[in-house]
This record gives sequence, structure tokens and C-alpha cells, in this order.
Amino acid sequence: MDQKLQAYIDKLNKLNFKEMYMNDFFLTWEKTDDELEAVFTIADALRYMREQNISTKIFESGLGISLFRDNSTRTRFSFASACNLLGLEVQDLDEGKSQIAHGETVRETANMISFMADVIGIRDDMYIGKGNAYMHEVSKSVREGYQDGVLEQIPTLVNLQCDIDHPTQCMADMLHIIHHFGGVENLKGKKVAMTWAYSPSYGKPLSVPQGVIGLMTRFGMDVVLAHPEGYEVMPEVEEVAKKNAAASGGTYRKTNSMADAFQDADIVYPKSWAPFAAMEKRTNLYGEGDSEGIKKLEKELLAQNANHKDWCCTEELMKTTKDGKALYLHCLPADINGVSCEDGEVEASVFDRYRTPLYKEASFKPYVIAAMIFLSKVKDPQAVLKALEERGTPRWTK
Amino acid sequence: MDQKLQAYIDKLNKLNFKEMYMNDFFLTWEKTDDELEAVFTIADALRYMREQNISTKIFESGLGISLFRDNSTRTRFSFASACNLLGLEVQDLDEGKSQIAHGETVRETANMISFMADVIGIRDDMYIGKGNAYMHEVSKSVREGYQDGVLEQIPTLVNLQCDIDHPTQCMADMLHIIHHFGGVENLKGKKVAMTWAYSPSYGKPLSVPQGVIGLMTRFGMDVVLAHPEGYEVMPEVEEVAKKNAAASGGTYRKTNSMADAFQDADIVYPKSWAPFAAMEKRTNLYGEGDSEGIKKLEKELLAQNANHKDWCCTEELMKTTKDGKALYLHCLPADINGVSCEDGEVEASVFDRYRTPLYKEASFKPYVIAAMIFLSKVKDPQAVLKALEERGTPRWTK
Amino acid sequence: MDQKLQAYIDKLNKLNFKEMYMNDFFLTWEKTDDELEAVFTIADALRYMREQNISTKIFESGLGISLFRDNSTRTRFSFASACNLLGLEVQDLDEGKSQIAHGETVRETANMISFMADVIGIRDDMYIGKGNAYMHEVSKSVREGYQDGVLEQIPTLVNLQCDIDHPTQCMADMLHIIHHFGGVENLKGKKVAMTWAYSPSYGKPLSVPQGVIGLMTRFGMDVVLAHPEGYEVMPEVEEVAKKNAAASGGTYRKTNSMADAFQDADIVYPKSWAPFAAMEKRTNLYGEGDSEGIKKLEKELLAQNANHKDWCCTEELMKTTKDGKALYLHCLPADINGVSCEDGEVEASVFDRYRTPLYKEASFKPYVIAAMIFLSKVKDPQAVLKALEERGTPRWTK
Repeated sequence: MDQKLQAYIDKLNKLNFKEMYMNDFFLTWEKTDDELEAVFTIADALRYMREQNISTKIFESGLGISLFRDNSTRTRFSFASACNLLGLEVQDLDEGKSQIAHGETVRETANMISFMADVIGIRDDMYIGKGNAYMHEVSKSVREGYQDGVLEQIPTLVNLQCDIDHPTQCMADMLHIIHHFGGVENLKGKKVAMTWAYSPSYGKPLSVPQGVIGLMTRFGMDVVLAHPEGYEVMPEVEEVAKKNAAASGGTYRKTNSMADAFQDADIVYPKSWAPFAAMEKRTNLYGEGDSEGIKKLEKELLAQNANHKDWCCTEELMKTTKDGKALYLHCLPADINGVSCEDGEVEASVFDRYRTPLYKEASFKPYVIAAMIFLSKVKDPQAVLKALEERGTPRWTK
Repeated sequence: MDQKLQAYIDKLNKLNFKEMYMNDFFLTWEKTDDELEAVFTIADALRYMREQNISTKIFESGLGISLFRDNSTRTRFSFASACNLLGLEVQDLDEGKSQIAHGETVRETANMISFMADVIGIRDDMYIGKGNAYMHEVSKSVREGYQDGVLEQIPTLVNLQCDIDHPTQCMADMLHIIHHFGGVENLKGKKVAMTWAYSPSYGKPLSVPQGVIGLMTRFGMDVVLAHPEGYEVMPEVEEVAKKNAAASGGTYRKTNSMADAFQDADIVYPKSWAPFAAMEKRTNLYGEGDSEGIKKLEKELLAQNANHKDWCCTEELMKTTKDGKALYLHCLPADINGVSCEDGEVEASVFDRYRTPLYKEASFKPYVIAAMIFLSKVKDPQAVLKALEERGTPRWTK
Repeated sequence: MDQKLQAYIDKLNKLNFKEMYMNDFFLTWEKTDDELEAVFTIADALRYMREQNISTKIFESGLGISLFRDNSTRTRFSFASACNLLGLEVQDLDEGKSQIAHGETVRETANMISFMADVIGIRDDMYIGKGNAYMHEVSKSVREGYQDGVLEQIPTLVNLQCDIDHPTQCMADMLHIIHHFGGVENLKGKKVAMTWAYSPSYGKPLSVPQGVIGLMTRFGMDVVLAHPEGYEVMPEVEEVAKKNAAASGGTYRKTNSMADAFQDADIVYPKSWAPFAAMEKRTNLYGEGDSEGIKKLEKELLAQNANHKDWCCTEELMKTTKDGKALYLHCLPADINGVSCEDGEVEASVFDRYRTPLYKEASFKPYVIAAMIFLSKVKDPQAVLKALEERGTPRWTK
């Protein structure tokens, strides 16, 4: 057997991830360390096999349903790629951006689209308190459908971004970090600066900063969350970050200074988001159909943002990071000064220098999603990886 | 060989369905009893094999074209599921909801999308006298294309709902009934109430009630069509129902009383539809581009509907059915009192009690569609079922 | 081995098309005669194998990305068919019709959609000087992505119509001509009339007439380009046509008389297009966001068109062609007098007589696209064709 593949299998043999079988993926902090490492390992293994031109199709037929409540190119293509890699055909369910009716309608729709669905990927990040709850409702509905004999299989739910977490993004970010620093064992004591940055647009989701502090505090790193006053994230997630840091031997702290966060940082993630309280307010305004209120809030938020144009990832700030060479992260697309906007999150020369690493960071996402599906669908992943290698079907007849 | 699969094959061996090969599926009453039973049997066999994790892909490549002239989630996903189950990739042709130009354009488009199409599924239910005719035009065009050497194969046409019938829905309803009552042989003398019900929305298609009376009269059952005066369905379909009933040893009659229909019924199907004459008028108004006339008609119809809010499937009415336990059917989504609307087709507690059976009813549709395709594409279905079992490719590497 | 397939392989053995491997397809005149013949030969071979029910899937998984900047049914379905034939699943990237931002955004999007993309098909014909340039930018971006380790494979770029050429259309037209005249060796001295024709619509792309004179001058034929004064095509493409004609022993000339072009023609291709200079002006107006200017230009162009309603492919003109039986070509849909418009490009009786050949002409496009992909993805096409025959997987279990 191929040695590299064997090494992945050996690693898996040491991990306990039984609970992932037939299970969903909502939030990273609902998973154990072993489970997260299993995702990383399977992601690497699937990528390696694809590079070796070995097909990893575990489905002869079956559908992957994508349900996006918000425009998306990157995540949509990542999900489509992951499904295709495993043999599932993607079908999009287009429900528009409206706040969907809950209860009866969700239960019914979830079952109606799932007769041959093996996975459902949902992006629902616009409404605080709604997205994650909606995903749970879908999951509960299809599990009931399975128990009642309506469905022949339970579709796995993969959170493609909710109001709380963006697990496929943050896991891809994390896998990029692991590869960059040469292994998870080299991360202890590294300083991560998750910082707010100015953007001329408004209402960007909180799921990335929340996902980052909820995940990166688990590896013994020193995680700093920086933002201007008034841009607080969900307090529950901060609690998670604190507990994680304590458990992993790292630290978590908050600051209102970007310079403080960048000082000697090994990793920087400067990115705009909207204040949690404002997003909560917006959700209520939408619920009340108060379009005047929504417009007013938008105006206020844009004005508030404009007070913080100095929150930008400049060359000057980058120089203050560890050896002036911190790893710059972003979920893309970034607001780049003088390129996609006048003033934005990052100076063009900084972005330019990190373009290739940024693209690599993004390239892990399809494999992370595929790994989440794989671990939910396959009872003995080690055996199946072995079987796929033995089967040796070329992905591409070159 | 697996005994259950053998039983399906044995059943098929007794049926004559030769004419289905390389043929289309437009209306149930254009098919013989044997042909319908073949569809049910193949649907059950495909479902059984999927449950046994046996791949039923009969296509390595090929397209299934879906052409919906009306919004659809359920039927669209059922068609996509059926195609995927057999190995076809779905491509949607989006032609909007406009009344499409006929003649030259249909012929040309039908051929242009069919170079690698094995199936074309069409939903075109909005215009009386048009939908079914359009499907025939498409079918004729691609058959000519095949004869002329333009196409290498004849795409099978599957009617996913027209102005006359909704065969995939009604066949799924019927298969649900057959399973519920433990076999087609137990249906003789059962009373079916296909009744109109109030809905606050307007212009619902006639294809379901028409499809139901055109199909369910073929099993020796006593079919009653109930609606307020003025909600007549197409007279031609009523003629079909009468003839069917006579031939099958059942009965068909009409009433203007919902209570009369429900009395001692074994099966109830309360569902809103628009009067046939009004739909014919609307089609003409659309043809003339008379938007004022359309608005006026809509107003009149909503007012007319509102006179019949008492046509609702209540608990009280349900108590009058056979043992108070009639099987409640609906094509979904239903207008549920106090859930999806104030007053609607059914009381919430009734719907709630039948939710699981309703979802099961819907779950037959993908298999019914797949069976229609299978019977059109496979010359010797029994042999192919056997071969698929012997091939034994798992659908999913668990 | 099958004799016909062996003949295709023998033909390929005599051709040099090494440079097509891992390469893109932008313009026909960037390819050698051998390379074009290889495309024709593979297209014929793939079609033949499909007719013999032999699967030609060379991909177990992988995506084909389609990116259309303009509405399309024919080309979209042709691309989807080609991808499906080879085993790729199509994912559409919908970027709207706007002139997309170039530079950073193109580079990023190109990589983000390509993690598992084996082919990218682009249609971008609306803006002079932009479409082809955009395709090159995408190709450059993904090649860099591959070199930088972002992508595991290089997606092949296929030009599905740009501002300069429409290679998949013109190659399909040409393959139709070759079959019609019984082989490329019978084309010397044949007269081709590529002529402008009146259409009541405005702004039709120049890529078809340009593609035709750029391609059909390579086979020793006498190509005449006819149009009213003011409807000139890109001068650079005319230069290409002249050089091609000189090299192939044919001729290329221009005329302002449709009658002159039709006289004794073996092949006629009457089709509307917009003047090159006007399209260039329109591109600038769009760039400036001058919607008033665009409206004014549209009015002018429609008025200009209306002066040339006599440029129509009539029965009378057809009589003047070789034996009155020239092969009539069109990329479809045509503007047919009294059918799709009052006055248009062709008389109904002429179109009617050529309908079947026209549909056949169109039927080559999926195979031409598949051949372009095949030659880019397969290092030894002859060996792979042989291997596919030996594998003998039926496309369809009949």
C-alpha cells in the first residue's frame, strides 16, 4: 500500500470519531478534538488520492442538495466539488433570500427534497438566531422522515455558514495553517490576531470571526480578537473561546486596538463584520417588515463603519508582526484598497504578496466538506480508503 | 436470486407492456391495466433495490431534460431523483411561464436540446388545451429528429403535469393506496371521495382531480367527485371516468355535497381547483394579452371561492368516513387552517394526524417516474432487473 | 477491432496534434490544419461510438464549468452534452451580462471555481475587444493556479463564442459540410457565400461571419463575404481569411451584392450581424455607462438595417446557386419570413426545405466540443479510443 495513504490511515486509527457516523456538522465546538482531526486527515487523504488520480467516488448515484439563502460562488462551487468528488449530483433548492416560514413548511420541504438526498448543505447566515435553528429543524425533519419510513436514507446536514459559525471555512483556514506551520504540533504558543477591518459595505456576517475564535483557541494558540468598540460578537461564542483556550493551554483575549493584536502575531485575519447587536436588531426589523427601519439602520451602520477606516491591514502593521511575516488569512473576497474599493480591509501590496497562500487556503474547502460527508456516510473510513486504493479506478483516463 | 425481487419479476412476466418500450407517458387512460401495473411493479422493484443498496443505473451517461412552465419544487426534485437513480444528469430548460410559440420554435428547440437527451420531463399545466398538445408536439419533433438522423436516440417524454392529467402524481397516490390496503386485489368496492375544497388562492390546476377520477375508476372502486356548482372539470375526462368504472366493476358519480362524498368513504382527497370554464376563459384572455380581463377574472374567481369556505376537510367530516378512519390524500402542499392560511382545505389536526402517510404518498413519485423511464428505455425489464442484481454494484459504499 | 473505429485511429496516426494536449481552444486560425482535422476525426469517432452504445466516459468525476455572459440554449445544451458524454458534471457560473471587472477579480474567481474543474466553457461575445481577452485572462489565471499548487489540474478553456470567433459553431458547420460533400478532399473549388441578411433585431454578434471566413478559407474553397456597405467585419479577421485562401489554394473576396455571392454558390450562409464599428462604439458606450447613447445607437442601427430588407435568402436567389441546390447553412435560430418575423433572413419555404440538414448541422456541435476537450485531456487519443472500445461499457443498458 502507498505509504502516504497508510500514514493517514494510521493517524485515523488513533482517533475516536465514531459519533460522526450518520451525524451532521453544525458547529466546530460541538465536535471533539479527535473528530476535527479526523476531518483534517480525511480531507488530506482525499486530496492526496485525487492527486494520485484515484477516484474516491463512494456513491454510484444520489443527490447533494444545496440550499443557499444568500448569494454564493465560492461555497457553492466548493460544495458542488465535494459532492462530485464523492459521486453525488448537486441539485440546488432556490428559496430566495426571504426569511422562510418555519414549522410545517420546513418539515415538509425537507422531506420532499430528500427522497434521494444523501447530503443537504445549507447557507443561512443573514438572520441572527435563525440560521442554525433552521438547519436543526431540517435535520430533525429528515431524521423523523427516515424513522417513519418516508426516506430510505438520512441526508447528512452540512452547515455551509450559519449565524453562529462557518465551520467549512474555518476548518479550511485551519488546515491551511496546519500545513503552513508543518503540523498541528507546531502551533502551541502561536499568536493569532482575528481583527475587524473597515469595509465600505455593510452587514457582513459574524460567522467567520466567531468561527475563528471558536476553533483556533483549540490548538494551544494565543488568540486575540480585536475590534472597535461596538463591534462585539455573540457573547456565547466568546465563552466557548475562553473555555477552549483554557482547555488547550492557549489564551484568548479581546482588545480594541488593531496594533495590539498585530504585535508579534504569527497569523492575522483582518476582516469586516457587522456588530452583533445591530444584526439582531436587523433580524427583528425584517421580522416586522419594517423597511424604513432597515434603511435607517443601514445608514447608521455605514456611518459607524466610516469612523474606523484606520482599521486596515497595512504594510506598516504587517511589519509589526512576527518577523514581519505573519501568515495573512482571509475568507475572500477581500475589500482591497484601490482595487475593489477606495478604502478597505487590506492594502493592495499586502494582498498581492499573499495571493497564492490565500488561494491555497480556499482550496482546502472542497476537501473539508467532502471529509465531513465521508465521515458521516462511511462506517469504517480506514477500510474504505484502503478499498478505494485497491479498486484503483482512475479519476481521469489521461 | 433474492425472493422479493423474483416476485416482482414473476408479476411482470404475467403482464403485457411491450408497447411501453420506446414510448411516452401522457395520460394514464391511454395505458392498459397491464401497463399501469407494470409501472407500479417496476417502481416497487426499484425502491426495493435501492433499499438493498443495489445500484439501478442503466445509463453511464445521458441527460434528463426538465422543462417546467410553472414553479415546482416537489415534482422537479422527483424528476431529478428519478433521473439520477437511473444514471441520467438533469439539465433544466428554463423557458419562463409565457405561452411559448408553437410550431417551428417547438420543433427546433426540442431537437436542439435532445442531442444527448434520453428523457424530457415537461410540466405545462397553466393553459387549458395547450399543455398536453405542447407535449405531443415535442414528442413528435424528436421522433422526426430521430428518423431524420439528427438524434441518435429518441428521448422519452414524461408528462409531469399537463392541463388534462397529472399522471406521475396520481400514479404515486395510487401506489400509496395499493400499499395502504395491502394490494390491488383489496380495492374492489372501496369508496373514494375526490372533493373540491376551499383555498384562498386562485387558479389551481384541474389536473389532479381529473387525473384521480381518470385513474382511480379503474380498480373497481366507487369514485365520487364532489364540488360546488360551477367547479366542473373537463367533460371528456368525466366520460373517461364513467367508462372506466363500468369496465372495472366500480362506479362513478358526481355530487354537490362534500358530506355526501365523505359519508363512509375509505379514501378522501379534498383539494382545491379552479372551474374548467374559467380556466378556458383565462387561457383565451392570456392569448389576447388582455391583462385587465385577467385581473377581473381573478377577482371574480376569488369571490366565487369565498362562497364555499365551508368546503373544508374537518374532524367532523372525517368522523363520517368509514370507521372515522378514511385514508386522507393530498398532492401537497395543502392549505391548512391556521397554519398556511386562515381558512383552507383541511383542519390542522386532520393534516397532522396524516402527515407521515402524506409524506409516504409523495415518496412514491420519484420511483413512479423512474419506472416510466425504465419501461420506455429497457426492452426486457425482467432481464435487466436480474442483471442489475447480479452486477450488484452498491449504490453507496457504506 | 471495429473497422470504422480503426479507420479513425489510422487517420489520427497521420496527424500531428501534440500541441493540443493540455491546451485551450480560442480561435480556429491559431490551430494547424492537422489539429482541426484531429478535432473532426475525434468528433466523428465519439459520435460513432455513442451510436454503437459504447460509453466514452474518460472522467469518473470532475466538473465542467459553463460561464455564459449572454442567454443561450443551444450552446449551453451542447456544452452540457459534451461534458456529460465524457463524464463531467456541469456547473453554471452565472455572472450576469454586465461587463465584469477584470484583473484581480477574474484571477480570483477563475481559481475559486476551478478546484475540481477539468473544463471551463465561456461565451462572451457582446463586447468588442473584451470577450477573447477575458478568456485568455481566465486561462492564464488557472495555469498560474496550477503552477502555484492551488489547483490539482489545469482546466481546459473552450471558447463557446467570443467577440472574434465562434469556433465550436464554425467547426460544427464545417463538419456538416465535410459530411455533405463526402469528405474534405471534395471541397476544392467549391464556392461559399457568407452573406449578411436582414433581421429586425439588432446587435447580432460578428463571431459567426468572422469564424466562417477564418475557417472555410482553409480548404481550397472560394469564399465570398457579402454585406451592404457599412457592415464590415474586423479587418484583422479579413487578413486571416486572405492568408488562409492563399495558403490553401482557394480564394477570398468581398462584395456588396448578395446576388453576386449567391451566383453558382455551392454553400450559402445568409445571416445577420451588426457592423463592427457600431459594436466597438457600443462597447465604449457601455464602458462609459452612457445609456442614452446606447439607446440612440440602437435606433440608428435598426434604421440602418431597415434599409437592407432586400438582403433575404429568397427562392429566387437560391435558384441562382449551383444547380439551384446550394447547401443552406445557419447557426440557428434564423429569422424566418412570416414565421418568426415579418421580414427576415430567409423565406419560409427555403428554410423548410433545409430543416433536417440544418438540425444535422447543429447536431455536430456537442461532438466538436467533446473532441476539443478530449484532445486537451488525453495524451494518446488513439490508445484511449482503443481502450474505450475494449472496455466496452454500454452507455445504456437497453
